[in-house]
Amino acid sequence: MHQQELTGLQLIGNSFSAAGTQTFQAFAPLQQQWLPQTFREATAEEIDTAVKLAARAFTTYKKVPATQRAAFLNTIADNIIAAGDVLLETASAESGLPLARLQGERDRTTAQLRWFASLITEGSWVNARIDTGMPDVRQMQIPVGVIGIFGASNFPLAFSVAGGDVASALAAGCTVVFKAHPAHPHTSHIVASAIRDAVIGTGMPEGVFSLLHSTSHETGHQLTVHPLVSAIAFTGSFRGGKALYDAATRRETPIPVYAEMGSVNPVFFLPGILKEKGTTLAEQFLQSVTLGVGQFCTNPGIFVTTKDTAADVFVAGLQQHIAGMPAGYMLTPGILQAYNNGIATLQREGAQLLGAAPGAAQQASPYLLQISAEKAQEHPSLCHEVFGPSTLHISANTRDELYKLAGAMEGQLTATVHGTEEDLREHAELLDILREKAGRLIINGFPTGVPVNHAVVHGGPWPATTPAAGTSVGTMAIYRFTRGLCFQGFPAYLLPPELQDENPLNIWRLVNGKFLNDTNI
Amino acid sequence: MHQQELTGLQLIGNSFSAAGTQTFQAFAPLQQQWLPQTFREATAEEIDTAVKLAARAFTTYKKVPATQRAAFLNTIADNIIAAGDVLLETASAESGLPLARLQGERDRTTAQLRWFASLITEGSWVNARIDTGMPDVRQMQIPVGVIGIFGASNFPLAFSVAGGDVASALAAGCTVVFKAHPAHPHTSHIVASAIRDAVIGTGMPEGVFSLLHSTSHETGHQLTVHPLVSAIAFTGSFRGGKALYDAATRRETPIPVYAEMGSVNPVFFLPGILKEKGTTLAEQFLQSVTLGVGQFCTNPGIFVTTKDTAADVFVAGLQQHIAGMPAGYMLTPGILQAYNNGIATLQREGAQLLGAAPGAAQQASPYLLQISAEKAQEHPSLCHEVFGPSTLHISANTRDELYKLAGAMEGQLTATVHGTEEDLREHAELLDILREKAGRLIINGFPTGVPVNHAVVHGGPWPATTPAAGTSVGTMAIYRFTRGLCFQGFPAYLLPPELQDENPLNIWRLVNGKFLNDTNI
Repeated sequence: MHQQELTGLQLIGNSFSAAGTQTFQAFAPLQQQWLPQTFREATAEEIDTAVKLAARAFTTYKKVPATQRAAFLNTIADNIIAAGDVLLETASAESGLPLARLQGERDRTTAQLRWFASLITEGSWVNARIDTGMPDVRQMQIPVGVIGIFGASNFPLAFSVAGGDVASALAAGCTVVFKAHPAHPHTSHIVASAIRDAVIGTGMPEGVFSLLHSTSHETGHQLTVHPLVSAIAFTGSFRGGKALYDAATRRETPIPVYAEMGSVNPVFFLPGILKEKGTTLAEQFLQSVTLGVGQFCTNPGIFVTTKDTAADVFVAGLQQHIAGMPAGYMLTPGILQAYNNGIATLQREGAQLLGAAPGAAQQASPYLLQISAEKAQEHPSLCHEVFGPSTLHISANTRDELYKLAGAMEGQLTATVHGTEEDLREHAELLDILREKAGRLIINGFPTGVPVNHAVVHGGPWPATTPAAGTSVGTMAIYRFTRGLCFQGFPAYLLPPELQDENPLNIWRLVNGKFLNDTNI
Repeated sequence: MHQQELTGLQLIGNSFSAAGTQTFQAFAPLQQQWLPQTFREATAEEIDTAVKLAARAFTTYKKVPATQRAAFLNTIADNIIAAGDVLLETASAESGLPLARLQGERDRTTAQLRWFASLITEGSWVNARIDTGMPDVRQMQIPVGVIGIFGASNFPLAFSVAGGDVASALAAGCTVVFKAHPAHPHTSHIVASAIRDAVIGTGMPEGVFSLLHSTSHETGHQLTVHPLVSAIAFTGSFRGGKALYDAATRRETPIPVYAEMGSVNPVFFLPGILKEKGTTLAEQFLQSVTLGVGQFCTNPGIFVTTKDTAADVFVAGLQQHIAGMPAGYMLTPGILQAYNNGIATLQREGAQLLGAAPGAAQQASPYLLQISAEKAQEHPSLCHEVFGPSTLHISANTRDELYKLAGAMEGQLTATVHGTEEDLREHAELLDILREKAGRLIINGFPTGVPVNHAVVHGGPWPATTPAAGTSVGTMAIYRFTRGLCFQGFPAYLLPPELQDENPLNIWRLVNGKFLNDTNI
């Protein structure tokens, strides 16, 4: 079959499958029309087969040495690059995102794959711990099994088929059944094919990865309640994440759901810095609000100031500039509708429209809104995420009110404070409050743009993510898919290399309480 | 007030509280009678006050330097020792456990407190990670808030008021509201007083620890659904843990429940080793089954052999010796009743009684039972925990059946295999299956006796614990009560010492991907 003919099918193990008869199409935001190609909805049998294959593959894949898993990840990255411009053009057609952004996203995606490959090649991530007393006990992280992963709409590459969730799950030694986001099925197909080729090319067991197409919540539910699935990873709306969480925790054998469910990412502008550089900050802030048509989980949906002249000037500046910010096409008609509904709801509940940018029909316009501190505290629902290029201003009358507003906020992916040294020293209590609210605290920066490294956290207290301790970006993401296994009294010939006396992998280990990477304990 | 008069009351912050009017008494198993002293049931208001005090204390306690938290933990240990023989005698009266065992348990308890004190004094446990790129991001583990902790019946000291859960939560920087097990309220009171004196003596904020007495599930439920509680730790029955899990996951803001819900701890005896040393193993195994009247979460409730002469001889040996094993008084009348019901249910469902030890009235007798491999697979409920000194033999007809039995088992705290080198090499697949079933895999040992160190895991897949990745014993237990917080773009003067360039605490950190404990990055 030609590449073209293969699209529209599920990837079940290494085979493309066309059991279903119901179809759907993707939407081209820039053309505002449905793309001609049809994709088949996965059937219940296909889902079941994919999970069973993944469970069988796990029994082999969990024992594949890290260097081979790393080669698999690197090959996926190579294959994604080899897919060439077709991938970027397809993703652009299906998402409306510009090619340059998608090129950056592809770089991020392949960098993540290579990053996890190098993490597991180095090997210390398994947290090997050895206590040589009586009894002799040794511990390392092991993979948990089959992971059901859901693609996000807003990152057709980096949080999708070969995104951070898949990279970290495969790196950990887990197998994956992936539900593609129906907004970019063709993109998903191309990337899934890159993974399939890597599976075959590096000799990984069939079923280590499968891809399901679906527009139905039922597919996600079936995946989540399948007895052979051990954990779920999801990036999307609160409603979607919560439904999976409820299903997973009500199973006979509950499983963890690692759901990233969005955030309003409050930004606090303190008085001194607004006086010092309010104009620059206003410009930068509007950039952050409208970047990528505001379609980021870390988009700053709320900002807070305290009442003074500098704040008035700052808000007036935003009001003046918002009209000049670009409107844009959103990822799907559904997302646009939710955005416009969200803005209407805010206004109905008492938010005042301070300004907006003009946009063509079906474009999302940047909006600047405002509510009083009293209203914000009365109606916490005003502080829920409106996914898109809007931001809501809250003015605190007093410092006390500022802290109360911060304290009343729900869990967030990020919280940001802008301040001079004097501001920050004076408002130590604000930082103290915010550290209970977010996974990432930012000083004098903006929340959009999540670095991929060892120290980043892309997670936070409910309802930002569940559980609060998870992160879906950075190397810590791998621990969502592992647990510690303790080996007691194991003879040397049965120990995995990570735990052998000789430390053949030269990894860092906690040996009788001391960090060592010696070749011998 | 004298110490004696204080018993029977709740400890709410640093004050003893007597709001309730309903009372209960503890049971003395050796005398088989209710102890005279009455204890008051905590009221809804007392629970609420305790949680609110804990939440307020958290805002201070989370910032207390580790060395001071360590001093607090060490002082608790000192005060427990200072409580002297009265503590041991009280615990013995309330639990029926011998003084020698309780002395050992007290040592374990104080050792755990000092162990966590030294862990946080050394400081590397916070997993500091620093990436100095643009943006500069740094991460460390921070405490999550107020922890509701439930005491276990079977360890009146080591898994109770100042047990591993409390030690790890306080070490992490969390505050604690503790629900004492009603089987040992006076013991709980003495230990709570030791903590209270340490709170006052080391200047910790009031509310860092409170103690509630209750016989009612409602108290545990109220604690679990309190909006200011951030996590729950529990050791006890599946039914109890599951009820808390359901309540916690159905909250408007769900919280994690770290529940250790018991286990049957299967032991597999392979053919070669039974031929080699079946007689010795039979003796050791019966010791493990009947130790402490079988009242351990790690008690081996099931053992599996494959059909051959050595296995017949082994089981015949057990059958012969079971009659000589000691019967004993269990912790409470309820636990005895559950044990006897469990034995009756096993027999009703088809288990055959191979032997039993005689016991006095109200004593729990050791039982040896047997079922066929077919029945074990048909009725998985036969493989549920019967808490007490019994064990159930399953004989597999073939190696295949042995693996099927292992594969059909639920999650366990431990799984054990006895084998010669030849046995173990031949049955590599069995170990492979069992590693998905347990938190601790044991070769040629017995599951009872859980070492306290860095490498141990006391946890395992559902229904042994939730989540599977948690451990309630060993230093990894601290991570149940923390999450990673990312500091982005923080100026030096706002960074916690753990993340400052100069590394003033000299801890191990992952700096730009390299493990370093240098004084400078």
